[in-house]
Amino acid sequence: MLRTHTCGELRIEHTGQKVELSGWVQRIRDKGGMIWIDLRDRYGITQLIFQEGETNSEVIEKVREMGREFVINAKGEVKERYSKNDKIPTGDVEVFVEDIEILNSSKVPPFTIEDDTDGGEELRMKYRYLDLRRNVVRKNLVLRHKLAQATRRYLDGQDFLEVETPVLIKSTPEGARDFVVPSRMNAGEFYALPQSPQTFKQLLMVSGYDRYFQIVKCFRDEDLRADRQPEFTQIDCEMAFVEQEDILDTFEGMTKSLFKEVLNVDVEDFKRMPYSEAMKYYGSDKPDTRFDMKFVELNEVAQNKGFKVFDSAELVVGIVAEGCGDYSRKQVDELTKWVQRPQIGAKGLVYVKCNEDGSFKSSVDKFFSQDDLKGWAEKMNASAGDLLLILSGDTNTVRKQLNELRLEMGKRLGLRDNKVFAPLWVVDFPLLEWDEESERYHAMHHPFTSPKAEDISKLDTDPGAVRANAYDLVINGVEIGGGSIRIHDQKTQSLMFDHLGFTKEEAKKQFGFLMEAFEYGAPPHGGIAFGFDRLCALFGGAESIRDFIAFPKNNSGRDIMIDSPATIDRDQLHELHLKIEVEE
Amino acid sequence: MLRTHTCGELRIEHTGQKVELSGWVQRIRDKGGMIWIDLRDRYGITQLIFQEGETNSEVIEKVREMGREFVINAKGEVKERYSKNDKIPTGDVEVFVEDIEILNSSKVPPFTIEDDTDGGEELRMKYRYLDLRRNVVRKNLVLRHKLAQATRRYLDGQDFLEVETPVLIKSTPEGARDFVVPSRMNAGEFYALPQSPQTFKQLLMVSGYDRYFQIVKCFRDEDLRADRQPEFTQIDCEMAFVEQEDILDTFEGMTKSLFKEVLNVDVEDFKRMPYSEAMKYYGSDKPDTRFDMKFVELNEVAQNKGFKVFDSAELVVGIVAEGCGDYSRKQVDELTKWVQRPQIGAKGLVYVKCNEDGSFKSSVDKFFSQDDLKGWAEKMNASAGDLLLILSGDTNTVRKQLNELRLEMGKRLGLRDNKVFAPLWVVDFPLLEWDEESERYHAMHHPFTSPKAEDISKLDTDPGAVRANAYDLVINGVEIGGGSIRIHDQKTQSLMFDHLGFTKEEAKKQFGFLMEAFEYGAPPHGGIAFGFDRLCALFGGAESIRDFIAFPKNNSGRDIMIDSPATIDRDQLHELHLKIEVEE
Repeated sequence: MLRTHTCGELRIEHTGQKVELSGWVQRIRDKGGMIWIDLRDRYGITQLIFQEGETNSEVIEKVREMGREFVINAKGEVKERYSKNDKIPTGDVEVFVEDIEILNSSKVPPFTIEDDTDGGEELRMKYRYLDLRRNVVRKNLVLRHKLAQATRRYLDGQDFLEVETPVLIKSTPEGARDFVVPSRMNAGEFYALPQSPQTFKQLLMVSGYDRYFQIVKCFRDEDLRADRQPEFTQIDCEMAFVEQEDILDTFEGMTKSLFKEVLNVDVEDFKRMPYSEAMKYYGSDKPDTRFDMKFVELNEVAQNKGFKVFDSAELVVGIVAEGCGDYSRKQVDELTKWVQRPQIGAKGLVYVKCNEDGSFKSSVDKFFSQDDLKGWAEKMNASAGDLLLILSGDTNTVRKQLNELRLEMGKRLGLRDNKVFAPLWVVDFPLLEWDEESERYHAMHHPFTSPKAEDISKLDTDPGAVRANAYDLVINGVEIGGGSIRIHDQKTQSLMFDHLGFTKEEAKKQFGFLMEAFEYGAPPHGGIAFGFDRLCALFGGAESIRDFIAFPKNNSGRDIMIDSPATIDRDQLHELHLKIEVEE
Repeated sequence: MLRTHTCGELRIEHTGQKVELSGWVQRIRDKGGMIWIDLRDRYGITQLIFQEGETNSEVIEKVREMGREFVINAKGEVKERYSKNDKIPTGDVEVFVEDIEILNSSKVPPFTIEDDTDGGEELRMKYRYLDLRRNVVRKNLVLRHKLAQATRRYLDGQDFLEVETPVLIKSTPEGARDFVVPSRMNAGEFYALPQSPQTFKQLLMVSGYDRYFQIVKCFRDEDLRADRQPEFTQIDCEMAFVEQEDILDTFEGMTKSLFKEVLNVDVEDFKRMPYSEAMKYYGSDKPDTRFDMKFVELNEVAQNKGFKVFDSAELVVGIVAEGCGDYSRKQVDELTKWVQRPQIGAKGLVYVKCNEDGSFKSSVDKFFSQDDLKGWAEKMNASAGDLLLILSGDTNTVRKQLNELRLEMGKRLGLRDNKVFAPLWVVDFPLLEWDEESERYHAMHHPFTSPKAEDISKLDTDPGAVRANAYDLVINGVEIGGGSIRIHDQKTQSLMFDHLGFTKEEAKKQFGFLMEAFEYGAPPHGGIAFGFDRLCALFGGAESIRDFIAFPKNNSGRDIMIDSPATIDRDQLHELHLKIEVEE
């Protein structure tokens, strides 16, 4: 190796040793006959020192040719520093260099390789290989590595087998759009890239593999939203001979172990919340439970007092912003505008300030008496000094809007600390959801998700009320994982297809080989999949997954560093039996 | 869980315990009022027992409805067996069943789920989910899991970081054919699937990641040979600040550790062999060194004696088949036909039997005296009772042919025991190879492979003689891994491109972003990639990789279980801006 030590390794006890280091020039200071270089590698930074008169003049000459990001090899002796730097672990020592070699030169980088870089998003992505040199990005990828290894160790210890499932599979019309791969050897035919290994992991259960997992790339050709990538990574898991409780136990155990091992954080037993409760009290199936601020429904106390906006609403619902009773008119106006933005789309915002003197000030004072407002405050468990924020309208819409406002207020009030973790199992999801467009029920999860035994009888009378054995793991308002107990018997499966409006033939065409496999002794089974990129971002205390992916794509699905996708040549197209048809 | 124990867990010390098991019915025997079921799961087989009169009659009734591969749940008491079965770990006990539940029925499988199945390749692939239930296949996948985990643990322990590189990348004209993925959002453009993460791992070295690895799927759209799959898995590795010796050390260490941990086999220090020697003595760059039988060149002693076939040959070369001197005429004729098969293509085979009485019998007796033949035997270090097998012709051709014959003789003589492992580093590969068709040199490995410093001067005078810092790990005649030290300085890289006939513009177009990255401080680096499927097959003592892949494709690149590739619908094609053009 072109080094005896890394740049993060030398300590006071190495003093007097001859060492050899290799790395990148982070900084050069040249002053009064002394030269200092901060030499950087993946492991840290070590100070090199040169002194005119003492150091060989050829070495000094070479040093003066160097610039930032040059790659060098230095040999010298470890000495104790005069002025120690307690900010870095190597700060007690420096290396007095006797010989140096320039391993490679560097052009001046387009942005500084520092924690607070001057490089914008676009530039950093184009030169991602330089961006990856920055501490902050490297730490994210080290965290990702640790999480992956810890996940594998844990599951391996629980008798899970990692089985690789194929990447070149078959397109299915259900779900999101597939990426496809034209086949050269089978003219006119295509493989598809998997959106998840769902069918393969179920087949593995049929094969008796019992406990399967895989950390695996998945692909979705969707229009990209802020935090979506066309390729993403899942921790994909499936178990046989289990019931819902076994899955929740197993993966609560895994998640706790990851928190402990990777972050040294002890998290408490995960709370459970039915989907219906999550929607009612948080307006979301992925509530951020780091803070309370639950929804309080006010129809009973706020309707039929002559305020038409409330009277005509399906739902009047509010939250208490603790200690915000002193918000100025300007602040409240700004909040109103915030909920009226097109992304949120509320028509207006009703506020009630709970004054310290016991009186109330609201935007609807002319419709409601002080007693009315006091009634609201009591129902909402508000105290003097608090601010009530109330929205009204169609139930589903208003819940979504108030969810956004709740999250925003939580942020403004500092209640969403990224060092605090609030894991939650959201359970009892509905089995079916009504699709307005096609005027029929769709499977909320997928058509193999099993209904709760006690709800099956409602499939005919009240399909929308049937609950599924489906669950999501939500941490800090982020959906980290989700899964279900699958249907394994054909009677229930037929019933399900009937309710989804499939004929037997259609079902067979779409799910043929899985249906057939189920005829040869499918065991009861269920599973879960974790969004690994999101898990990494959550552990790293970040909101965006992009900096936890070594080479991410931008919002148009492009990798601007390698300039992909790109055209391919005519011969290649011809071999694939394809012609491009672009409408002008 | 629907079990208290697995089917591989119960022992004599569990006698008297009430247990619950779940699994598949392997076998039912019903005789004289007693019924035995072999219940199977991933972990083993446990015998269940039922007795008319003792067992509840409803349970007996249910049991008599069951067939092979039914999935059942059984509750009962562990008892010591009267007649123990020492072939299975659970053979001392049986479970006297008190209650049973049929979890799922099964149709009669199209082949038996046993080690020696009656199912042919095609049928087993169509019903792969049933094939995967067989012990032999499951053991292979368990081995694969263990190898992957052990690899990760080892590399993690050596400070390697697993970094995921993208799957949707860009097509390059070099190398094998790419699979491509049409982009919907970027009309007329395509992603490509990686043949290896080569450029990305080199970029990670530029980024300072120092020690990278990944167990990763790679893709090649090649016409499939017997043991190739369109998607395959690599253990991909790269290190910075290293020389060739560091890479060989590191990965010799890893390989030894895998042998020890997974197979409990201690392998000796790996031998080294220059490419030129491998070709001269084994006629192959991946010699099987489990047995000797080295080539001996005979031009000196066998030419100019009037045998035209030898006299006109560039090379006369033979091997000694020890103890085969008693081969009958029929056996030798059969061997001759074997080398004359189109796959081998030798014109003929010269043999010399070394008789026990010191005389020789050969197919060329009329051209050579007993003294001549004695001279050959001496040169070849043969003894009485041995058989000399000699081929002649053009050097490259005859070496290839004799390599095949050597491997065949090794097999026939039982010298290729799949429990013996002979690892070998083949080093000093040529940098360039002459391509007859394009009449120019090509990079043997890839254009970033570095020449040996002491050979650079020969680039102008004798390019074919320049050796590269390239190496392959060969075990038992299988290329398990290969890699090189890369060029990291631009001077050498330009020189290389010149000799490969690239203009600066062409080089930039093809390798643009990597070339650019190298201008910002690329460290000295090199790496290696292991064929993970082949490593698994080697460890499993098998020749074919197919049964070490859960869901492999056939030789036409089809997955016959899921019937992929398949047509996609017109709308999907339209969205991708594509039209199919199939010539009739």
